[in-house]
This record gives sequence, structure tokens and C-alpha cells, in this order.
Amino acid sequence: MRFAEQVRKEVIRSGNPVCVGIDPSTDRMAEVLLQHGHNGKGKRDIGALLTLFGRLVIDAVSSLVPVVKPQSAYFERYGSEGIRALEAIVKYAKDKGLLVVLDVKRGDIGETSLAYAEAYLGEDGPFGGLIDCITLNPYLGPDSLAPFVEVARRTGKGIFVCVKTSNPGAVYLQNQIANGEPIYAHVARLVARFAEEQNLPQGYSDMGAVVGATCGSEAREIRNLLPRSLFLVPGLGAQGGSLEVVRDCFDADGMGAIVNSSRGITYPPGHYTSLDQLGEAVQQAAKKFITDVQSCRPQPA
Amino acid sequence: MRFAEQVRKEVIRSGNPVCVGIDPSTDRMAEVLLQHGHNGKGKRDIGALLTLFGRLVIDAVSSLVPVVKPQSAYFERYGSEGIRALEAIVKYAKDKGLLVVLDVKRGDIGETSLAYAEAYLGEDGPFGGLIDCITLNPYLGPDSLAPFVEVARRTGKGIFVCVKTSNPGAVYLQNQIANGEPIYAHVARLVARFAEEQNLPQGYSDMGAVVGATCGSEAREIRNLLPRSLFLVPGLGAQGGSLEVVRDCFDADGMGAIVNSSRGITYPPGHYTSLDQLGEAVQQAAKKFITDVQSCRPQPA
Repeated sequence: MRFAEQVRKEVIRSGNPVCVGIDPSTDRMAEVLLQHGHNGKGKRDIGALLTLFGRLVIDAVSSLVPVVKPQSAYFERYGSEGIRALEAIVKYAKDKGLLVVLDVKRGDIGETSLAYAEAYLGEDGPFGGLIDCITLNPYLGPDSLAPFVEVARRTGKGIFVCVKTSNPGAVYLQNQIANGEPIYAHVARLVARFAEEQNLPQGYSDMGAVVGATCGSEAREIRNLLPRSLFLVPGLGAQGGSLEVVRDCFDADGMGAIVNSSRGITYPPGHYTSLDQLGEAVQQAAKKFITDVQSCRPQPA
Repeated sequence: MRFAEQVRKEVIRSGNPVCVGIDPSTDRMAEVLLQHGHNGKGKRDIGALLTLFGRLVIDAVSSLVPVVKPQSAYFERYGSEGIRALEAIVKYAKDKGLLVVLDVKRGDIGETSLAYAEAYLGEDGPFGGLIDCITLNPYLGPDSLAPFVEVARRTGKGIFVCVKTSNPGAVYLQNQIANGEPIYAHVARLVARFAEEQNLPQGYSDMGAVVGATCGSEAREIRNLLPRSLFLVPGLGAQGGSLEVVRDCFDADGMGAIVNSSRGITYPPGHYTSLDQLGEAVQQAAKKFITDVQSCRPQPA
């Protein structure tokens, strides 16, 4: 089953379209976690710590949500050791029945994009075809995205192209008006073309878009440009996104978007004396976030 | 010594401003190389093969050029094993006295960009401060680049922000006219601001730009917008860039730009019966490329 169909199935099964971001940062981790990330000799074992964090989050949320999204930066931070932990976490998430979006925001000239595409979406890549979807950056243009589209179609995987991101500086380039419309609309038209080329009789294409929950009325405009694309919606919570924007990202049946929270779920404030206690707090934060998202999600007629 | 000063010193010492790209792809490697990338049991040892390729290229060019540029995609293609090979190659290049630009084209929301910046430019990152400079993608705006600028300034490292890339589709977004000038000029102004903020009494800033050799008369325009920034110039050779454009990227003294070739140097056509023979062919291709670049490089008065 291809990516967008799996998302539909899993969103229906879970009863919500929430994605939990996995961004392991030692600066934010609870003391009880940091105590566990050591080898026998008192030296920090960073690979073990990253993996422990990922497993704790996955164990806490796998019965609640359909999707998790590891952020590659926090694993690359520790080089090959970090990537080994990422490989283990992706496998663990898939074993628990979750869909995995890897947030890498790649994009390069054609042959290099192809290497990235095979790395993350290829059957014989280092993740063994376990990653369901990745995020992409469109600055280099159509030919920088095309190899990802091709590999994704071959392997039944998905892509989310950054159309409108959730950070304050997103407006600097993305909202420049060119030829009568903002740059993000030009990117949206590109994604729409990739979606149309999939030539599906019905349902969402596997060629999706990142649309930040901070973007105001633009969400509706982007939804109109991209009627067949899934949206990955970050920025609700810590970054100040709004439920109104999230609502505009859904279709009338409450489908078509998955809504991400990372820090707001995985770093619950408070003091924890055991990993179980921390896991419960993560689970509670996930439930709270699900309630928020469901409150603005259109219900099917 | 900070990055741009090191570039100046090494370009003067080498007598040329050439950068050799390290893009290990098994699809392009000579048979004699592929024969070596096996463990005792006849199974391919991809980490050993990538490292061998990198060492062969570095051995061939380290006495000729000042800079090498590994492309991260070709290492990520093999996950943690690939990144381990990248770590080894970066160390090997530094041991041979080369400057190392890692081509990663990263860019994300602030806290994530900071994790990337610490990964690649931080003293205590997995590369141990050995990477001298990385490439960045500006689509997410100023706040996505700022953490890289901050870490680079702290550690004396450099950045090259993609302003105008060398691929055919670069025009799709980069040449859209907004507010009277193309998007790439908006990016150039952002880089210029970062360069000015470095507040240097003289010389080039460490905040540079990627400017493709395929861009025609735009090179001169970008040079005018960025008088204090080093340019990384890809696209000469395989991608059809021109020596005229390369010339426009230099200042009157023939400084201010480093010119990259990857495939054109590291995959010389022909059949090779030994690694030594292949290494010699790589060296010859590098010499030829150096001659081409020097032919268009302004000579100091």
C-alpha cells in the first residue's frame, strides 16, 4: 500500500491525525533519562541515550497516534553513532506499527538528490525501506525534487516539500511576491504538478507539502492550490501556531493533514523519578495534543 | 586562523583556487576500485570502499589543490557505515593539509539548525572541529541561517549559502523577480548582511555564497552584491558552466572564489589495471582542471 493510503488507514484506525516528533536533545532531556545514557565506566553512551529516548517516546505514543517524525539533525549531531541510533529508532517505530516520516529537508542537484532519495526512500538503502516519507527543500527547483518523486513512486513512499514553514523568518523568501503570487505558491504549484503526474483515480497523492500552523489565512490558499496533497503541519504549540490554521489544512472530512508536535509532547515539564513516570507524562501530553487537534478537525458528515 | 584567511593562505601556497569534490558513487567507480571494496568473504565492505575512494582522490590531489569537498549525500546513502567513512575521509584530508568543505545544504528552523551547526561546525561535534566550512540552503529564511553564522563565528569556520545553484532548474525559484530583483539577489543581500556583521577591518568574511558557473552575467551582479564574500563555484565541466562566469566570480587579484570539480576529476574515463594508475589519471584530470581555471583567473597587478 502506498504512503497516502497508509496514512488514511492509520488515521482512521487511530482516530486522529497526530504526528509525534522525535528530537533528542541532551539540553532538554529529563535527569532520569540522562542518568541511563552511560556505559559501565560512567562515560556517556550517546547512541544508547538517543535510542532510549526514542524508544521511550514510541512506547508512550504508539497506541495513540499514527505517525512519528524523527528529526535527522539531532542524530547527525552525533555522527555515525547518532545515525546508528536513528536506524534503530526507525526500526523500533515500524515494529510498533507506526508510520515514520524522517525530517531531513534535503534537496540538491539531480544526481546528488538521487543519492539522497535512494538513501532514505530506496528499498536497499541503509533504512531498508522502513522510512515511509521524508521532507524536502525546494530552493534548487524542479530538477532537485524530481529524483525524490521518481524513487518515491517506485517504492510507494511519500514526500513533503517545504511550501510554507513555521518559523518567523519563513516570510523572508517564501512570501516574496513574484509574478503576482508569493514564492510559496510557486512551490505549491510545483508540488501540485508532481501530485497530478501520479495520475490517481481518487484519494491523496503521495506528493505532499509542509505547511506551518503559523501561516494564517495562507493555509486555505495553499489547500486550494494543492487539493490532492497531504499536508504535514508543524508549529502548533511551542512555535505559536493556531488551531484555526490547522482546521484550514484539513478537507471537509477531516482528512488530508497530519499535525506534528515535538517538544510539546516529548519534553513534558516537571521532575521525574523513573522512566515509567516520564513515559506516562509523555503519554498525557500526547493525549492533550490529540484533544486539541481533534477540537478543530472537521468531522465527516 | 579563521576560514577565509586560511583559504587565502592555502590558495596562495597552492597557486590555484581549485576544490575537488568527493562524490563516491559505485555506479561510476572504476572496476579496479570496486574489486578492492570487499571483505575476506567476498562481501562488499561499503565503508572500506568509500574510504578507499576518498583516500585515493586525496592522495592524488593533496599536493596540487587547497580544498576538497565531500558531498554528504553519497555517504548518507550508506547510513551509519557511510558516515563512519566520511568521518575517516575528513580526518585523512585534514592530515594531508587540505581545507575541507562539507556539502550538506542544510537549513531548518532555529533550534534544529543549531543542532546541525554543532554537528558540522562545533568543536565537540562528531567531526571534532575538522570540517572548515559547510554549504547551506536559505529557503527557510534568516533565522534558519543565523545559528550556523553564530557557531561559525565562534569556531572560526565558514559557510557557503546557496545563492544561485548550477542546475538547470535553479531558475524556477531563484530567478523569480520579487520587489524588483530576483530571489537570488534577496538571498545575496542576506549573506551580505551576515558578512557585514562580522565587522572585519579587511579581507573576506567567512560568510560565503554558492554561485554556479552556469549562471551567465548574473555572476557579476552577485559579486557586486557580495563584495566581502568568498564564492564556491560549482558547475564548470560536466554541468556546462563557462570560464567567463568563473572569471566574473574572482576579484581583480584573482582571489575571492574557489572553483569546484567533482566527477570531471575523480572519474577519469578509461580502463585502469591498478589503483596507482587510476590515481595518476585523477591527478592528470586535476592538473587539466587547474590549467583551465588559471586561464580565466585574473592575475594580481
